[in-house]
Amino acid sequence: MTRSDTDTDAARPAAPGDAAEPAEQDEQTRTRLLRAAITVFDRKGYTAASVREIVEMAGVTKPALYYHFGSKERLLAAVLEQAAREFTRTMDRVVSRPGTARERLLALAIDLNGLFQQNVPVVRVAHAAFFGPVEGTPPFDFTIFDREMERAVRRIVEEGQAAGEVAATAAPSDVALVVMGIVGVFNMRQLHYGVNQVDPGALQRLVGLAFDGAFGPQRQQGEPRS
Amino acid sequence: MTRSDTDTDAARPAAPGDAAEPAEQDEQTRTRLLRAAITVFDRKGYTAASVREIVEMAGVTKPALYYHFGSKERLLAAVLEQAAREFTRTMDRVVSRPGTARERLLALAIDLNGLFQQNVPVVRVAHAAFFGPVEGTPPFDFTIFDREMERAVRRIVEEGQAAGEVAATAAPSDVALVVMGIVGVFNMRQLHYGVNQVDPGALQRLVGLAFDGAFGPQRQQGEPRS
Repeated sequence: MTRSDTDTDAARPAAPGDAAEPAEQDEQTRTRLLRAAITVFDRKGYTAASVREIVEMAGVTKPALYYHFGSKERLLAAVLEQAAREFTRTMDRVVSRPGTARERLLALAIDLNGLFQQNVPVVRVAHAAFFGPVEGTPPFDFTIFDREMERAVRRIVEEGQAAGEVAATAAPSDVALVVMGIVGVFNMRQLHYGVNQVDPGALQRLVGLAFDGAFGPQRQQGEPRS
Repeated sequence: MTRSDTDTDAARPAAPGDAAEPAEQDEQTRTRLLRAAITVFDRKGYTAASVREIVEMAGVTKPALYYHFGSKERLLAAVLEQAAREFTRTMDRVVSRPGTARERLLALAIDLNGLFQQNVPVVRVAHAAFFGPVEGTPPFDFTIFDREMERAVRRIVEEGQAAGEVAATAAPSDVALVVMGIVGVFNMRQLHYGVNQVDPGALQRLVGLAFDGAFGPQRQQGEPRS
């Protein structure tokens, strides 16, 4: 889903002399269509987006779109499934990292913010589909992002509790919701105000708040926060 | 914006014998149009929603819609402005409540969740407009919800700091973001899973986490959390 890890020239029409194998060509066609669909859905909105515009931008034929995806609705679902796979991969990578629970949760928040920044168009397309009319909702389970993030945070919190770093009384699912809220508000604010207007140290401070609390009676006023 | 505080019969067509004064009739017409617009925008999506369908549901004429709002785009903006006014009123009410910072922030979270539950259709319409294509974005400043909530939380935190309840080292704007994140994730999860599947005690526990932290080195394992 990120643009840096794949061929930046994938949107050009296939040249007659291309030497790619059929399976590889299929993969290139799918990639081109998914990428064009994100751009057109984001620019026009799903309802107003036309199949013609998507295939023209992808440099493929209409039958190729129908062969690979079946319909505009299935193409949107495929865009969301691709985004969900990358989200899951990011969560898997974060969970496998060593470190304290605090370090691992901050890394999770930073990586998710990076994933967001690299994929703003598809984030907008996914949210527009989620909040849009029921009639236009693709066959896709939107709770996967929520469930994958909760799974990752719960695991880090439970391992932190086993290591004695995290209070045994903190419910891992509650900590998961707080971290999800922090990442969500941080990312959405970047969508509101633009990336550069967000204080780059804010994410670290916010995760620190979830760790330490703002109101703990144990903390003396003026005591350093982290 | 809530449905309980206004005439539940407002969607019926105006009867010829209605004795309402002109100004009152105007207000009723506006209310009917706003309410019908929320329903149709939510059901069909803004792009697919037709002015004809909205005026039919409102029981008014097309010229009445254009007289009061000018265009479908301005009607959407008016829906959002009305939602923003109710949001601001809720924030004003919450800020004026007495109590400790902890009590007041929990009350803010509960009231915002109540506002959300009473207004799910307009929440969906507002988010669909925010995440939708730039071409369809109405002339409306979406940051108002964010700014109003931040203003309210900051004020409560600053008063809590002045009263010695809140650590002086906690930046009010950071606490605001954490509380906004908690309310956001809690509300959005209700949209995902349905209102009844959300643990009703969760909001209190989540705000408690923001107060006390999950990881504070000062807290002993097994020590009560609140």
